Amino acid sequence: MRATLLYAADDVRVEDVADPKIQNPTDAVVRIVLSCICGSDLWPFKSLPHTDTPRHMGHEFLGVVEETGSEVRGLVPGDLVVAPFMWADNTCGYCRDGLQTSCVHGGQWGVNGVDGGQGEIARVPYADGTLVKLPVGEDSELLPDLLTLSDILCTGYHATRTAGVERGDSVTVVGDGAVGLAAVIAARLRGAEQIILMGRHTRRTDLGRDFGATDVVAERGEEGIARVRDLTGGEGTRKVLECVGLRDALVQSFGVVRDGGTISRVGAPQYSDVAFGFGDFMRNITLTGGVAPARAYIEELMPHILDGSIRPGRVFDRTLSLEDVADGYRAMNDREALKVLIRP
Amino acid sequence: MRATLLYAADDVRVEDVADPKIQNPTDAVVRIVLSCICGSDLWPFKSLPHTDTPRHMGHEFLGVVEETGSEVRGLVPGDLVVAPFMWADNTCGYCRDGLQTSCVHGGQWGVNGVDGGQGEIARVPYADGTLVKLPVGEDSELLPDLLTLSDILCTGYHATRTAGVERGDSVTVVGDGAVGLAAVIAARLRGAEQIILMGRHTRRTDLGRDFGATDVVAERGEEGIARVRDLTGGEGTRKVLECVGLRDALVQSFGVVRDGGTISRVGAPQYSDVAFGFGDFMRNITLTGGVAPARAYIEELMPHILDGSIRPGRVFDRTLSLEDVADGYRAMNDREALKVLIRP
Repeated sequence: MRATLLYAADDVRVEDVADPKIQNPTDAVVRIVLSCICGSDLWPFKSLPHTDTPRHMGHEFLGVVEETGSEVRGLVPGDLVVAPFMWADNTCGYCRDGLQTSCVHGGQWGVNGVDGGQGEIARVPYADGTLVKLPVGEDSELLPDLLTLSDILCTGYHATRTAGVERGDSVTVVGDGAVGLAAVIAARLRGAEQIILMGRHTRRTDLGRDFGATDVVAERGEEGIARVRDLTGGEGTRKVLECVGLRDALVQSFGVVRDGGTISRVGAPQYSDVAFGFGDFMRNITLTGGVAPARAYIEELMPHILDGSIRPGRVFDRTLSLEDVADGYRAMNDREALKVLIRP
Repeated sequence: MRATLLYAADDVRVEDVADPKIQNPTDAVVRIVLSCICGSDLWPFKSLPHTDTPRHMGHEFLGVVEETGSEVRGLVPGDLVVAPFMWADNTCGYCRDGLQTSCVHGGQWGVNGVDGGQGEIARVPYADGTLVKLPVGEDSELLPDLLTLSDILCTGYHATRTAGVERGDSVTVVGDGAVGLAAVIAARLRGAEQIILMGRHTRRTDLGRDFGATDVVAERGEEGIARVRDLTGGEGTRKVLECVGLRDALVQSFGVVRDGGTISRVGAPQYSDVAFGFGDFMRNITLTGGVAPARAYIEELMPHILDGSIRPGRVFDRTLSLEDVADGYRAMNDREALKVLIRP
C-alpha cells in the first residue's frame, strides 16, 4: 500500500510499504476512506533531523473494516469506523476513567510497527476498544465532520471539560487553528455565554464567529491581554483554553485568566518549563488539560454532528489525494490552508 | 505597644511601636491574645537583606475587640475573634466567590501601615469582613486549635478542596510541617481512605498518623516516589497535596501523582518556573492550589474544633512570650520546634 513517510524537516514522501495484516487476535485491518493533516504533524515537519527510518505520519482517519482478528467481537467487515488519535484497549483502569491516552496497552499511530493514518490501510490494535462505528454510509456528506471526532473536536472538547466550562461561563480561546476553532464549538455546546477568540487570521476568526465566538481579539501580548480585560470588566475570564502549544500563548493565557480561574492547555507544549511561581500562586490559577482522550468523547459528541447542530468539518479548506500529501503539509505550514483533508 | 520586627536574616527584634488606632470607619482594634510563627515567616528570616524599615511580622492571631469604627456592624468590644492571614472586605466579587485572597480592597498583615500579628495589638481593616467571632471564652483550652483557623488548618483544607479530595480517595501529602499535618486532618475530614504522608521527621509523622495518615514514607526523591508507587499498585495517588513550596517537593509530587491526577500546591513557591512540559501533558496532570482564602473556610471548619473531633492545635509544641519571639524563630528554623505559640 501507499503511505506517508517523513524523512526530515520538509521531506514528506508517499511510498510503498508492506500491506497491513492482522498480527494479533484483537486487531482489525481498516481501509482508510478519509484522513487529514494535524497541526501537530507540522512540528516534526518543521524540525525532524534526517533519518533513514522515516516516521509513518497521520493519526486521524476513518475507514471501512476489511478484516478482524479472532477475538474482535463488536466489528465486522464492512463497518464504517472512526479512529481516535491514540489507540487503547478501552477496558483498563485508566480507560474506565475516561483517560484512554494513558491506557496500559495503548499507544500512538505510526510507531512500533503500527501504521499511520495518512495511508491506504491501517492495522488497528485493540480494534474493539479503539474504533467507533459510524451510522452513515461511505458516501455521507458528514464524513469530514465525523473525521474531526478523531482529534480536533474531541481535543477542543477536552479543553472545555478539564477547564470545567459550564452554562453562562465566560471563556477565552487562545489560538485560531483548527483546535482553537473546535474549542469554540465545544464551549458553545457547553453553554458558554461569552467566548473570546484570540487570533489574527481573519478567515479563521470569521469561521470562529460562525462557530459561536462572541468576540475576536486580534492583538497579541500585552495589547491582546488589555483588550480581553476590557471585554471582561478588567478581570479576565474564569476559563482560558490554550490551543497553541507555544510559550507565548501560555503567557498570554496567564494574562487573560481571572484570579481563581483555570487555564486548560490542549496545544501540545513545545516548551519544557512554565513560569508559574509566587505571583500566580497568589492568584490561585489552575493549570490543567493535556492530551485529549478522544475515545472518551466520541459517542457523546457524534449526535451533535449527525443532527447537523455543529459542523466542525468546516475547518477543512482543502482536499488533496494521498499522492499530493506533501503539498498539504506545505500549505498548512505556510498558512495557506487551515486544515487539509486527504483522500487515499 | 510591643511588636515583632524583622531587620535582616536572623535579626528579629521586639520593639516599641505606636499603639494602633482606628483610622477608617471600617476598622477595629484588637488586643491580641494568642499568635504564632508560620513556616512562611522563616523564608524572610533566612534571607532578608538588612533594612532600616523593618518588616512587621505575624499573620495568625486571635484576640479581643477593643474598639470599632463607626461603620462596623457585626462586632462589639469584648468579642473574641480570629483573623484569617489576609484581610478582606468579604463583599466584593472575588470574596463572594470564596477567593478573599484576591479581594479588591484586601491585603496582607504587616505592610502598608497595617500591623503584624506578632504584637500586642492590631488594627484590623474591614473588620466586619475580616474577623470571625469565636463562641468561647478567652480562657478556653481550645484557643490553640482555633488559632489554626487563621492559616494552617484552612491552608491544608484549601489543598484538599482545590485538589477535589473526596470520600474514598487516595491522597499523598508531601511535607510534614504544620501545613502538611493540617492537610492530613483535612483529607481525613473529607473522607480520604488512603493518606500517604511523605516526611522524615518521626515526631511529626507520628503526629500525622494520629491525625489520620495511613502510611508514612520517609524516603525522598526517586526512592520516595518508588515507595508511594508500591503503596498504590504502581500508579501513584489521584490527588497530591504539596505542602512545602520547594522545587524538589514539586518534582516529587509529579512523581507520585497518578496519570489524570491533580497536584495542589499550598506551600508558598520558592521557585519561579515549573518543569511542566510535554511528558506531563501526555499524562494529563493538573496543577492547582494557591494561597488559601482562609476566610472562606473558617465557619465551615470551626464546628469540628468545637466538638473536639479534630485537634489541629497539637502542632504547637512550644509556647513563648512575645519578648522571646526571636527564640521561637530560631527553634523553628533549626527544626527544634514544629510550630511556636506566642502569648503577648
